[in-house]
Amino acid sequence: MRTQICIIGGGPSGLLLSHILHRAGIDSVVLERRSRAYVLGRIRAGVLEWGSVRMLDAAGLGERMQREGFVHDGTYLASRNRGFRVDFKGLTGHPVMVYGQTEVTRDLYDARDAMGGTVIDEAEGVTLHGLPDSPHVTYIKDGTEHRIDCDYIAGCDGFHGPSRAAMPESLLKTYEKVYPFGWLGILSETPPVSDELIYANHDRGFALCSMRNANLSRYYLQVPLEDTVEKWTDDAFWDELRRRIPHDAAETLVTGPSIEKSIAPLRSFVAEPMRWGKLFLAGDAAHIVPPTGAKGLNLAVSDVHYLSEALIAHYRTGDDTLIEGYSATALARVWKAIRFSWWMTTLLHRFPNQTEFDQRIRDSEMDYLEHSVAARTALAENYIGLPF
Amino acid sequence: MRTQICIIGGGPSGLLLSHILHRAGIDSVVLERRSRAYVLGRIRAGVLEWGSVRMLDAAGLGERMQREGFVHDGTYLASRNRGFRVDFKGLTGHPVMVYGQTEVTRDLYDARDAMGGTVIDEAEGVTLHGLPDSPHVTYIKDGTEHRIDCDYIAGCDGFHGPSRAAMPESLLKTYEKVYPFGWLGILSETPPVSDELIYANHDRGFALCSMRNANLSRYYLQVPLEDTVEKWTDDAFWDELRRRIPHDAAETLVTGPSIEKSIAPLRSFVAEPMRWGKLFLAGDAAHIVPPTGAKGLNLAVSDVHYLSEALIAHYRTGDDTLIEGYSATALARVWKAIRFSWWMTTLLHRFPNQTEFDQRIRDSEMDYLEHSVAARTALAENYIGLPF
Repeated sequence: MRTQICIIGGGPSGLLLSHILHRAGIDSVVLERRSRAYVLGRIRAGVLEWGSVRMLDAAGLGERMQREGFVHDGTYLASRNRGFRVDFKGLTGHPVMVYGQTEVTRDLYDARDAMGGTVIDEAEGVTLHGLPDSPHVTYIKDGTEHRIDCDYIAGCDGFHGPSRAAMPESLLKTYEKVYPFGWLGILSETPPVSDELIYANHDRGFALCSMRNANLSRYYLQVPLEDTVEKWTDDAFWDELRRRIPHDAAETLVTGPSIEKSIAPLRSFVAEPMRWGKLFLAGDAAHIVPPTGAKGLNLAVSDVHYLSEALIAHYRTGDDTLIEGYSATALARVWKAIRFSWWMTTLLHRFPNQTEFDQRIRDSEMDYLEHSVAARTALAENYIGLPF
Repeated sequence: MRTQICIIGGGPSGLLLSHILHRAGIDSVVLERRSRAYVLGRIRAGVLEWGSVRMLDAAGLGERMQREGFVHDGTYLASRNRGFRVDFKGLTGHPVMVYGQTEVTRDLYDARDAMGGTVIDEAEGVTLHGLPDSPHVTYIKDGTEHRIDCDYIAGCDGFHGPSRAAMPESLLKTYEKVYPFGWLGILSETPPVSDELIYANHDRGFALCSMRNANLSRYYLQVPLEDTVEKWTDDAFWDELRRRIPHDAAETLVTGPSIEKSIAPLRSFVAEPMRWGKLFLAGDAAHIVPPTGAKGLNLAVSDVHYLSEALIAHYRTGDDTLIEGYSATALARVWKAIRFSWWMTTLLHRFPNQTEFDQRIRDSEMDYLEHSVAARTALAENYIGLPF
């Protein structure tokens, strides 16, 4: 098989890239290791930056999102059971959209199907060849090896995928920070405790009240990395959540059985560069953020923005300036999101080795945020998303 | 001898408190361990927040400052030899004033002398008695012990003074961070390299270009704590400074012999509470900041503001609400300045144990500051001084 762009990974970044390229008349094939049912069953982030919303709309993908998504004009930050609001809309002119990554992925599959896009799932043993200049890709499907010849490879295959691993170690420079705690998350079919998210800082650890829709809530607790899901009964989770969130929220919290419960570690990771000849990395293949700033999916969207612009310029005009600049352009925005996610994570969590001085610095920063328009604006402009 | 307020320490906070109380008809005595010549010879900070300027003006102390001081509407931040400006005036409406602490202290001595204020220098063995409720102070002058009976004691005697040491250990809670580097500073009779300060971040370490007047420059270099003044010849200092500051500044730098050279450690320190019965702490007696944010003298001024208001209310109306709230009120502002100084120090210095991830976070923050009005406004509003 031959295509212009071989896209490895059928998550949101790979599908979105494929869709945008298709609309520009550029052919692609998407290879996904898992089954479609598995990909659509993954529970992931739920907050879209306004730039991501605009980009999905511009790509003709926004219809269900605009109908079913929830526009949030702000969020709450809380410290020791007392909260204050950050008014995104008032401070920056823009809100965010609560619309799960699962839904975005479903919309993308529907759009690829409607356009007759080629998305090959359960593609095993995906291997990149001929890099950096004459790429092709092989994979095994139903026991048979297949080959895809292509002009470029887009590695949208996440942190553990083969694309970054295909780059020479001597070229790659990686930066990493592993946080000494995890997030225990549950999904429950209960009305959300608040109409906006609550990020709660407490002596017992961080908590987050989030949501998917009017009857589907998503809550998180900072837990030690050693904890297991088995250790946390639903009752224990709800009790602990009530202790950490603002008193008024604790009083009105509606609880119910969890329909999903999992513990995720928190990590910041960046690989540089994001291009090696005709191989590009996008999304989690190149960078990981802790979930605190809701940046993971949104960074994938901005990577795809830069990458699709670069490829469209190449095919339309033969100008490779954007292709040559892709890594630097994408990384400039990536690092700002990495910084913001690190800052928000550091501000809101308790660290096992922190000093009392460190904690008072964080308390002062929360106090400063509550009372400074400039500080809240800086938070808001990062949360709703810095411009592409 | 009897007075209403016995003020321990004849630095700027003690003298300013004495002066303001005098204007409100409240009597005080200032005890200073050193000679006046020694106090006036100390080289200290040089940047006054706009609130400090207004307070000195309001107290009738601003005449020479307004004539000889330098109004700075902004400052430069630099990273790896490339700078950008933070426009304090444009972002907050207010500038800062470059006017040395030495000059402020001289103006205060002149004002106390003109009003016949009692400032006893070379007062040795100052000891606080009868706390918390029935204070008196003893000291030795010219070999004779003297006693001062008073209503209140104001401890304006710096980090090493006897006032904080007189508070019970069980009451005091202290917070400290010691930074793993020092500042090597020189004073030289050369025109400043820039009309505004330059805070320079560089792979070799931090540098600061500051000034006292049109022909008196003050420069600093981050150095290891083990370094000695003897190790640094003037030539070595100038060479290293040129490497760290923006290229255009390095090219126009005018060098000359240093007339003062010293190394200072950097520390953040807070003691709580700032009141024990009838003893108050103000300025360095209660808190120390690294010099990066230019907050030391300015925090002393804001402490004196709160303390003088509290004492004036007590003597005028008998209302002790402000006295009882002094510690909490002063500390709320202190912690914000502690946070800002810590943040600016962390952002601009190289730490011996930092990771490459840490450095990239700082690089991203500099990049973000350069391009975000909100981020620069947050910096500017802290630098020019949060409201009293």
